[in-house]
Amino acid sequence: MFQTIKEFLMGFLKTGLFALFFLCLSVPLEVRAAMREIPVPDTVSREMQAMIGAGPFPFWSLRPKNTEEWKAFVRKFADAGKSDLPKLRELMRVTVEPGSVAGVPVFTVAPQSIPGGNAGRVLLHFHGGGYVLNPGEAGTGEAILMAGMGGFRVLSVDYRMAPDFPYPSAIDDAIAVYRELLKTFPAGKIGVFGTSAGGGVTLALALRARAEGLPLPAALAPGTPWTDLSKTGDSYFANAGVDNILVSYDGWLGEAAKLYAAGRDLKDPLLSPVYGDVSGFPPTLLTTGTRDLFLSNTVRMHLKLRQAGVDASLIVFEGMSHAQYCMNPDAPETRFHFGEVAKFFSKHLQ
Amino acid sequence: MFQTIKEFLMGFLKTGLFALFFLCLSVPLEVRAAMREIPVPDTVSREMQAMIGAGPFPFWSLRPKNTEEWKAFVRKFADAGKSDLPKLRELMRVTVEPGSVAGVPVFTVAPQSIPGGNAGRVLLHFHGGGYVLNPGEAGTGEAILMAGMGGFRVLSVDYRMAPDFPYPSAIDDAIAVYRELLKTFPAGKIGVFGTSAGGGVTLALALRARAEGLPLPAALAPGTPWTDLSKTGDSYFANAGVDNILVSYDGWLGEAAKLYAAGRDLKDPLLSPVYGDVSGFPPTLLTTGTRDLFLSNTVRMHLKLRQAGVDASLIVFEGMSHAQYCMNPDAPETRFHFGEVAKFFSKHLQ
Repeated sequence: MFQTIKEFLMGFLKTGLFALFFLCLSVPLEVRAAMREIPVPDTVSREMQAMIGAGPFPFWSLRPKNTEEWKAFVRKFADAGKSDLPKLRELMRVTVEPGSVAGVPVFTVAPQSIPGGNAGRVLLHFHGGGYVLNPGEAGTGEAILMAGMGGFRVLSVDYRMAPDFPYPSAIDDAIAVYRELLKTFPAGKIGVFGTSAGGGVTLALALRARAEGLPLPAALAPGTPWTDLSKTGDSYFANAGVDNILVSYDGWLGEAAKLYAAGRDLKDPLLSPVYGDVSGFPPTLLTTGTRDLFLSNTVRMHLKLRQAGVDASLIVFEGMSHAQYCMNPDAPETRFHFGEVAKFFSKHLQ
Repeated sequence: MFQTIKEFLMGFLKTGLFALFFLCLSVPLEVRAAMREIPVPDTVSREMQAMIGAGPFPFWSLRPKNTEEWKAFVRKFADAGKSDLPKLRELMRVTVEPGSVAGVPVFTVAPQSIPGGNAGRVLLHFHGGGYVLNPGEAGTGEAILMAGMGGFRVLSVDYRMAPDFPYPSAIDDAIAVYRELLKTFPAGKIGVFGTSAGGGVTLALALRARAEGLPLPAALAPGTPWTDLSKTGDSYFANAGVDNILVSYDGWLGEAAKLYAAGRDLKDPLLSPVYGDVSGFPPTLLTTGTRDLFLSNTVRMHLKLRQAGVDASLIVFEGMSHAQYCMNPDAPETRFHFGEVAKFFSKHLQ
């Protein structure tokens, strides 16, 4: 997702936005205080320490004013994100084939060899990026890690996004692909996963599938899912300035929520699945980190699932900000994460 | 544990310590900033909102200077803690009988009726209080909630504590009771639970039992366990001043660690189980909250258990500070917590 921090930062600075300067002026005092006060923990790997110790992502406080500014932001971010992919594909020994399912562009991500048990199984992947970022190939990073480290065939969906296609386009695309997939795979052999907005799509897809009378996938693995698009939940406040990836709701993130919702109630369950009726959901594994701005998005969803009697599990990474489990393939935490998700799917898929 | 906040506070002020005044002078700036900035979340029950909205516990910054001051602190805290117990026992419809096992004082806590499945089972309970607080009856609150809400017979162990009896007295008592219990109950019918220091004892007991060649209990449920007595782990820093129960390591808590360790390495696995070898541990359910100073103590232990292949589960409560799931029997979160722990033991005990 954000694999090329350095390159992105370089590109960003070159545009003349002087994001860091902008940051100093615009960061609320308490956010800056939090950023300063908390030392990098020595209870995580060196690779994770480097990620935790990095400054806040410079674009967090951006608030694009119009479609053009959004698209420039998306393009810049995607260009940076894409540049590391050839290396990642090689490292993970996976192939990525563009294609289309039910008219929706997808990428089939396949590892060099698929363990016997996983041969007839498929994972549906939805990338993150706040329903705005990571179009096309730029959204395949997490799918590559999953295929490579987990030994699954992954179908990564390049769903439509804001500003051109606000809600419900993303969920329409998700359900269209899922419906088509059900013609070749029984639901029991399909798992669904994704991070951030992709975790939101994962959960919304299950709500929508049930509403449409489709069988539910065998298992869901939403990573730090965006389950509440409104600024509701304790960690939007408690972890503001503590999380160095999203940093705060009050930047591009909150703007993206409004852009995607396009006037709809941000608490609509298909936008914010934490407000949905999740009874009857399949086994679900959720992941977050102690510094994650979406810590509450994740634990609220976990509690809701358990209250509904769903077999829901939770992993919280020490010291980790938003989605840092998929930002460095060399971090032991990354391998642990995809190993856990793979074990989870192996256990619950037919 | 801390069921009588108001009464404790009143008593505390009456002693003339003017704890709140003291607090204002001694709280580091960043702690005070955090205390002020984060609004009470509306994503928890009203009862939990009241607990989250309460000011920081006034005694957190105490640093008793000698044995006498420690004992005065312990006495005052225990008196306050005990005053609510008759009401709680009545509300939970449990009986509490003092007794002794292997020479260690215990309380047998029994619900009015024990569901059939739980008839031949027993839970061993270790109370919290930093290896200093909650001697005698004052330590029975959590056991009463578990017996009443979970329908289990509970044996609550009144283990020896600092300052008179530092490490390894607590663990010696724990293992002595467990060893004796094994004469009447097969290990498969014994579950062990406890909060904070009691969660630490729960985990240390399993380490010690294995070292002594005893069969391990069928399941463990450490709540927000004190797994690292040294100031190591991200949430000691990130949640300082965010947690309104413990507030900071740099008050009575850190002093209690030193008092209990009595010169030993704080990272000794029997003091800080997160440094132990947990392979072969039974199924373990850990609980914490997003504002908990022990969030890292809990998630680090959870990750370590999973890395060792243990069937370890985690529940993180939204917005919750340290151990607030056992402070108000009327909070829905309390019922949910003890319901989850009861389900967990019902599943894993023979």
